[in-house]
Amino acid sequence: MGKNSVSLRGKDVLALADFSADEIQTILETAKEMKNIIHRDIKKVPALRGKSVVTLFYEPSTRTRSSFELAGKYLGADVVNITAGTSSIVKGESLRDTLYTVEAMGVDAIIMRHKAEGAAEYASKVVSPVIINAGDGAHAHPSQGLLNLFTIMEKKGRFEGLKAAILGDITHSRVARSDIQGMRKMGIEVHLAGPKTLLPRYLFEEDGIYVHDRIEDAIKNADVINVLRIQLERQKAGLFPSPREYARIFGINNARLELAKKDVLILHPGPMNKGLEISPFVAYGDNSAIQEQVQNGVAVRMAILTHALTGGKEV
Amino acid sequence: MGKNSVSLRGKDVLALADFSADEIQTILETAKEMKNIIHRDIKKVPALRGKSVVTLFYEPSTRTRSSFELAGKYLGADVVNITAGTSSIVKGESLRDTLYTVEAMGVDAIIMRHKAEGAAEYASKVVSPVIINAGDGAHAHPSQGLLNLFTIMEKKGRFEGLKAAILGDITHSRVARSDIQGMRKMGIEVHLAGPKTLLPRYLFEEDGIYVHDRIEDAIKNADVINVLRIQLERQKAGLFPSPREYARIFGINNARLELAKKDVLILHPGPMNKGLEISPFVAYGDNSAIQEQVQNGVAVRMAILTHALTGGKEV
Amino acid sequence: MGKNSVSLRGKDVLALADFSADEIQTILETAKEMKNIIHRDIKKVPALRGKSVVTLFYEPSTRTRSSFELAGKYLGADVVNITAGTSSIVKGESLRDTLYTVEAMGVDAIIMRHKAEGAAEYASKVVSPVIINAGDGAHAHPSQGLLNLFTIMEKKGRFEGLKAAILGDITHSRVARSDIQGMRKMGIEVHLAGPKTLLPRYLFEEDGIYVHDRIEDAIKNADVINVLRIQLERQKAGLFPSPREYARIFGINNARLELAKKDVLILHPGPMNKGLEISPFVAYGDNSAIQEQVQNGVAVRMAILTHALTGGKEV
Repeated sequence: MGKNSVSLRGKDVLALADFSADEIQTILETAKEMKNIIHRDIKKVPALRGKSVVTLFYEPSTRTRSSFELAGKYLGADVVNITAGTSSIVKGESLRDTLYTVEAMGVDAIIMRHKAEGAAEYASKVVSPVIINAGDGAHAHPSQGLLNLFTIMEKKGRFEGLKAAILGDITHSRVARSDIQGMRKMGIEVHLAGPKTLLPRYLFEEDGIYVHDRIEDAIKNADVINVLRIQLERQKAGLFPSPREYARIFGINNARLELAKKDVLILHPGPMNKGLEISPFVAYGDNSAIQEQVQNGVAVRMAILTHALTGGKEV
Repeated sequence: MGKNSVSLRGKDVLALADFSADEIQTILETAKEMKNIIHRDIKKVPALRGKSVVTLFYEPSTRTRSSFELAGKYLGADVVNITAGTSSIVKGESLRDTLYTVEAMGVDAIIMRHKAEGAAEYASKVVSPVIINAGDGAHAHPSQGLLNLFTIMEKKGRFEGLKAAILGDITHSRVARSDIQGMRKMGIEVHLAGPKTLLPRYLFEEDGIYVHDRIEDAIKNADVINVLRIQLERQKAGLFPSPREYARIFGINNARLELAKKDVLILHPGPMNKGLEISPFVAYGDNSAIQEQVQNGVAVRMAILTHALTGGKEV
Repeated sequence: MGKNSVSLRGKDVLALADFSADEIQTILETAKEMKNIIHRDIKKVPALRGKSVVTLFYEPSTRTRSSFELAGKYLGADVVNITAGTSSIVKGESLRDTLYTVEAMGVDAIIMRHKAEGAAEYASKVVSPVIINAGDGAHAHPSQGLLNLFTIMEKKGRFEGLKAAILGDITHSRVARSDIQGMRKMGIEVHLAGPKTLLPRYLFEEDGIYVHDRIEDAIKNADVINVLRIQLERQKAGLFPSPREYARIFGINNARLELAKKDVLILHPGPMNKGLEISPFVAYGDNSAIQEQVQNGVAVRMAILTHALTGGKEV
């Protein structure tokens, strides 16, 4: 488990702000071992046999839910999905009572997505199973932040001294917040840029975080660019430049890529709006690790589940 | 398995009316062993390995469906969920043909919820897998009745001589019917109260069942109070007193609780409408076993599945 | 594995046109062994332990999805369901990117249903997991074609020299196409009939395929009749004779059955519109194998998954 190994048994995974650099490093190192399992012919390890995990999703999701579901199953856990959208009963019930119900069923972890900021933290206070935040409004998406760090570690071999650009709708992005928290912990310099309406400067006045008016200034000499998804469904009418304008002013294309380091790493949390925030040439180009992020996501979630449920001892 | 042990192998679980006191006792005793499994670090017993179970739900449900799903998985069964709501094909198909289809897939048990009274009994007549009724209209919900009995057994240590009050919308409640059947079999005296429109007196003219006009008369000296959920979605406009009136006249609050025995046990099938049929003080108070009911539900469903599929021999 | 055994490891299952008679025979012989497993008390074989399978359905389905899910679980595979209908995110994402995402999660097979003809073939070209076509528009539904062949083999003991009638909406039917391809490979003579608007004659000008104006001519002396489902949801207004007319002119009832061989085998892909394309007397009569088709479907899908994922070596 490496020299940085620390016990995370029973620790809720709410936001990367709650994790030390050592703790993050411990998860990433375990994820490296987990990634080997995904490549095996027999993707099955009994590390979480007899453990039960519920995914409790109040917002629709395919990639995060199925990534956690596969992660749990590869480790031998029982996984049960509860989607509020398809369940009229959960809708009428308070979050507190639903959490009590899921807890009472004897589950070891609740992987939870909710539209309200703080929902996962609230859950961690009212019930005893480990809470893993799979996205709470615009607040945090720690497993996404960790898989981004994992991808950077694999591709760059280090964190210290790297320059990362995070581009787009920073205001509404839980990915951006988790990225910023995780990257700063690991010593990465963070540069933000996006439409002014989607990037309130005062929110990010901290050491090592730089806010730019022009996207070009953020990209310049970047080692890593995380292109955020434009969440069209969250934009109120009128706020937003037209898609054509957005692509012209803020979209990442080959021309803008020239400004970054030659070996710049392109990340995107998916699903992509190609031609809007990212051009197809960049999305599928040599610098893109977008598909690999998904695989790393399964590995990181296997590591999260193992640490939270067993302290990593049985890996 | 205790002295009352009887074989229930292959017996459909349609309504508690079909079960003798000995049979109920046998399930409850097995459920006690099952509850220990839920508390173990490794919640996995191979009792139903190689058995397959389909949940076939024509009405949305979270708690009952996931409770059965976890119960099956803790015992090593394969569980497949079929929800009619999300499946346009099932909708156009007759219930008979859907049952034939599920039977043909080789499943050992069908856990079924349907809006029509008698749907589960019909299923038991047309197909061979064990049918477990997870609610058929206003008729029956036997696993809920059993988990209530289990909770009473745990908390009171006996059934004989107890006085139970069941309060609210008795007419539309399958929980009430299963409670009444189960409680009477075990020797519990049942007192009913609720709005007159929701409690047709003639339906319940049997020994040991008392219908009251005022809720206070049902509660008086009660050992157990089961507060039913007001199913707002089933009420026709105009029939119903306003929520505010309902809470005032029929809601269970601390003041009304004073009328019952000091150690009265508060049950609710969930999800609760807090402030309507039950006050938060009662719901989360010392007398409430509402959360524990959920855990007991998993244990009872583990017992039901084991008995129906293996006769309990492999527990 | 029989004398015709050939390796199908890693072969996509897109359409029966891609399979030789030997390859089809190999799958059918494995399916015979698999059917025994479904009848066992313990329906569990570790042939696919450690393999992961995703069902990716862009059209709703109950029977095909749950048939594949059970097939995978009987063999010990991990199965994760992704339904586009309940997932707003998949909807906005290109098919290509969704496939990349599922591939990256490390899955061994993608079982895919899509409304567009060619979607499965496209998938097979862009990602590396085995693609199993569970229906692509009106193009192909190979596992349905194979289970029909399996049912014929079981009931008739041979293919060569048989006469099959396929009746109804041929134009929109992927089942018909897969039937025609599979039956012709195995030496069965195919006779088609249905409303003229639903049966463009020029599409089927091949050896051993006969198109008839009157349904009676197709049925005459038939050994097998496959009655297609009228897909009311796919008909444009006006095209279609009224249901009453359809039943009178094209419906299969006992009177029309007299024209076929005495031991004619009746097939239907389900779900049935009884009283429309098929009378209840025929559907539940002695010649009908409609329910058995469903069971054979699980067996054939177990065979498909085993061959595609392991080459059948571990059965």
